[in-house]
Amino acid sequence: MPPEVHALLFDTYGTVVDWRTAVLAALADFGRARGLSMASEQVLADWEPRPIQDRVNAGALPWMTMEQIHRRAATEALARHGIVEPSPEELDRLVQARWALHPWSDSVPGLKRLKRRYVISPLSNASFAGMVRLAKFAGLPWDCIITAENARRYKPAPEVYRTALALLGLPAAEVMLVAAHNYDLRAARGEGLRTAFVPRPTEYGPGQTTDLAPAEAWDVVASDFLDLAGKLGA
Amino acid sequence: MPPEVHALLFDTYGTVVDWRTAVLAALADFGRARGLSMASEQVLADWEPRPIQDRVNAGALPWMTMEQIHRRAATEALARHGIVEPSPEELDRLVQARWALHPWSDSVPGLKRLKRRYVISPLSNASFAGMVRLAKFAGLPWDCIITAENARRYKPAPEVYRTALALLGLPAAEVMLVAAHNYDLRAARGEGLRTAFVPRPTEYGPGQTTDLAPAEAWDVVASDFLDLAGKLGA
Repeated sequence: MPPEVHALLFDTYGTVVDWRTAVLAALADFGRARGLSMASEQVLADWEPRPIQDRVNAGALPWMTMEQIHRRAATEALARHGIVEPSPEELDRLVQARWALHPWSDSVPGLKRLKRRYVISPLSNASFAGMVRLAKFAGLPWDCIITAENARRYKPAPEVYRTALALLGLPAAEVMLVAAHNYDLRAARGEGLRTAFVPRPTEYGPGQTTDLAPAEAWDVVASDFLDLAGKLGA
Repeated sequence: MPPEVHALLFDTYGTVVDWRTAVLAALADFGRARGLSMASEQVLADWEPRPIQDRVNAGALPWMTMEQIHRRAATEALARHGIVEPSPEELDRLVQARWALHPWSDSVPGLKRLKRRYVISPLSNASFAGMVRLAKFAGLPWDCIITAENARRYKPAPEVYRTALALLGLPAAEVMLVAAHNYDLRAARGEGLRTAFVPRPTEYGPGQTTDLAPAEAWDVVASDFLDLAGKLGA
């Protein structure tokens, strides 16, 4: 255990909360309200924010919040399934489903233990406002909220991690990223942060094939947030 | 009561916490450790961050955190009293005294009530890191933390209020600033925010002459945070 860590940053979607269940439910509600027999799992598989985030990071698109990105990505995914012109209200419901997600069962008790010893903050690609709403809904006991919006770049762009360090006023070696995603930990390690991997093997559903195991020798590997608290002395 | 307010922003130093008592104690400790009979109240009166903040806002100085500004202001104040070359450790102790302040007795119970109905956040000229530390020390139950550092300008520059609105994702009319300082409320109103004045008549000591009463017809005037919670239906 690195004794000098003072703050823990948490990837949030997937790592702290289960987004998939609620987004699938919102898609099913959308289909039912339209009287469609829609393949929600396939629409979700085609709902791809990453290419839009990459274009924002590259400067090919202006800064857009995750709500703006998800509206665009959902519209494109629905169109691929023959569903055109979703109304603004329909898009709001689909996108805002991500503000009302349930934590994994160990998340809140683990965060409460970790908070006694460390500053705890999300470091999510969510919008700042979206993370505020999610924290209130899910009872996430953050000390503060930092997201990609504070850097106006999306993870894994280095600016996101650097902005978090600057706001926390701490050197990289005193900050640890906790994530269920190897790509995120790799970028954080590249900026000198400590790393903790907590696998979430059902984030992407029962057939998940990615991020089931650590891809590198991360500083800590824990089975859940309670195990993490134990390993970090909290 | 404006029914559509969704978030409350709080000036923090003076409005939520008593900074003067702890800073005077830190100055007294400094004097004692040096074996000086130092007039702490006079040094504090000469400890002036505002001119430095104004130069940062005007672009005459690069962005500096409040810790950097307070180090400079404290050094200048001590020099005016014949005390030169304070050590880095002495300056740390004087500046970091502002991270360990006690709330007014109504602050935490009032914030807990208000949090049930509203998003609550500081909007302070403090550094982000300083506000995180203060919140942890004082048990301030913020939903998120927003400070001047997020805008890299100091209140009352309009960018500070605009940055808070952008991060909250809310129109100005749905956000209220709570402050013990008329200048701060005036600037917030200029940006379209709602305003609540809570006087803190001993913030500057027993002989305080400023901000004892509302200087304009603010939307709400409350005697303390519990009165504010009652007036805002929380």
